[in-house]
Amino acid sequence: MEIGFIGLGKMGMNMVTRLRQQDHRVIVYDRAANLVKEAEEKGCIGASSLEDLVSKLSAPRAVWVMVPSGAPTEETIDTVSGLLDREDTIIDGGNTKFHDDLRRASNLQSMGLHYVDAGTSGGIWGLQIGYCLMVGGEKAPVNRLEPIFTTLAPPNGWAHVGGHGAGHYVKMVHNGIEYSMMQSYAEGFELMSKSSYNLNLPQIADLWMQGSVIRSWLLELGASALKEDPKLEKLKGFVQDSGEGRWMLMDAIEKDVPVPTLSTALFTRFRSRQEESFAEKMLAALRNAFGGHSVKR
Amino acid sequence: MEIGFIGLGKMGMNMVTRLRQQDHRVIVYDRAANLVKEAEEKGCIGASSLEDLVSKLSAPRAVWVMVPSGAPTEETIDTVSGLLDREDTIIDGGNTKFHDDLRRASNLQSMGLHYVDAGTSGGIWGLQIGYCLMVGGEKAPVNRLEPIFTTLAPPNGWAHVGGHGAGHYVKMVHNGIEYSMMQSYAEGFELMSKSSYNLNLPQIADLWMQGSVIRSWLLELGASALKEDPKLEKLKGFVQDSGEGRWMLMDAIEKDVPVPTLSTALFTRFRSRQEESFAEKMLAALRNAFGGHSVKR
Repeated sequence: MEIGFIGLGKMGMNMVTRLRQQDHRVIVYDRAANLVKEAEEKGCIGASSLEDLVSKLSAPRAVWVMVPSGAPTEETIDTVSGLLDREDTIIDGGNTKFHDDLRRASNLQSMGLHYVDAGTSGGIWGLQIGYCLMVGGEKAPVNRLEPIFTTLAPPNGWAHVGGHGAGHYVKMVHNGIEYSMMQSYAEGFELMSKSSYNLNLPQIADLWMQGSVIRSWLLELGASALKEDPKLEKLKGFVQDSGEGRWMLMDAIEKDVPVPTLSTALFTRFRSRQEESFAEKMLAALRNAFGGHSVKR
Repeated sequence: MEIGFIGLGKMGMNMVTRLRQQDHRVIVYDRAANLVKEAEEKGCIGASSLEDLVSKLSAPRAVWVMVPSGAPTEETIDTVSGLLDREDTIIDGGNTKFHDDLRRASNLQSMGLHYVDAGTSGGIWGLQIGYCLMVGGEKAPVNRLEPIFTTLAPPNGWAHVGGHGAGHYVKMVHNGIEYSMMQSYAEGFELMSKSSYNLNLPQIADLWMQGSVIRSWLLELGASALKEDPKLEKLKGFVQDSGEGRWMLMDAIEKDVPVPTLSTALFTRFRSRQEESFAEKMLAALRNAFGGHSVKR
């Protein structure tokens, strides 16, 4: 079928490439003209502006927005929605907070537009394997987009999980679990790196992929990383987060659900970004104050 | 090759079955005569006692011990070692604490015997897929046992990871990671079960197996469990542990390595086994004492 695609970053470019492999008609726009050109070489039809993109689509239009979450997504959707007609659909494939989906869906609905939120997992490997898609929204536009979802996803790799925001909600929980799983492996490998057994970490990561209970795709990625750099000497332990872990924790707080490993994994990332921890200085100060324990100045 | 096998529980019976599929000569013993009989039907040679088992093996003998860890393993190895000759090898395939391996290896060495520790992962699925084996010990006996390891493991699924205790050390860390990973999924699914979206948990678990970043074998098992019982109504949240998580935490403490998600996962299991938590009563009491907040009596 035909789809407009806005945003040709790491995710977007691979996704339009995958769509082109199944001969969908893909009209693309990105602020970076060189990326539009790159997509044209893959058989996409380039647009020079959002207006141009919309003009090249036939009604009822479908426009997939794949730009960074937060303000860029919000602004893109605001602008595009002003250019679209009744019955057109906007799909947000980014990591949007589900509360924003609810607000947005109701705004767009009042303009006669449809809104679909599609949590998209698979990272840079999705081009090859397909993207796991968690889709939220009304039935009709989701059904209409089925050929797109089916092409982007691996077999059985997309599902309509609920109403507006449900797709991003499930993706949020997915990413929160991802944080904790990564932390689980990370702690185990750190402990092994300190073992007196002089363990060969790349060998062990590889070994665990073969029939062990903890085999997983994340472990496979970990094995490659360790093979390239067995002591991780080329890396700093500085870990960003893109919001989903925070939102999951906030949702858990709102619903009185304990998520202690998620919060630990999230706070570990926060700590990883601090050069100095005020809390740790405070601990040292208190320990010194009550017991005269020595401090480093 | 030829091997003696002691212990025909869930793990042991499947392991001798797998060994027989490659025509190894397997002499088996278990205290339960019916299990010996069952193994005989799979082509094993039954023994009526440990003495009988040892008498049916030719030197240099190899005896795999697959009985519950702790006292049963200790006692079995004590008895068997008294029956064996110099150059014979005892393999402990259970979840033994690596400190015990070190002590045991040195005792057995003084008797001229070899000791190999083989951390064994794969659970009840190992029969089909093969067991991931993490092997510790001296080179010579490990090399001699290669045909056995190769049969038990999937392709590339066994490795000699280090000296005495290294196999069980790596298996201990494996299991600790397993605790945290299980906890990661568990928290995510609990949160989704409380969502206002009325999410279909078996559908989502299945979906995540297709190309998502958090796909794993544990998730696959989770998906089956949820398909059978979507609200887990038939289960109590009572979770045992078999020691490895504790040992990993103790090792981390000894080496000053933070393992916060492991400790959270372990403590969650402890809490799951308490009918009432004294700590929680204490919290209620304190809250009542300073703020007059109401308590349940």
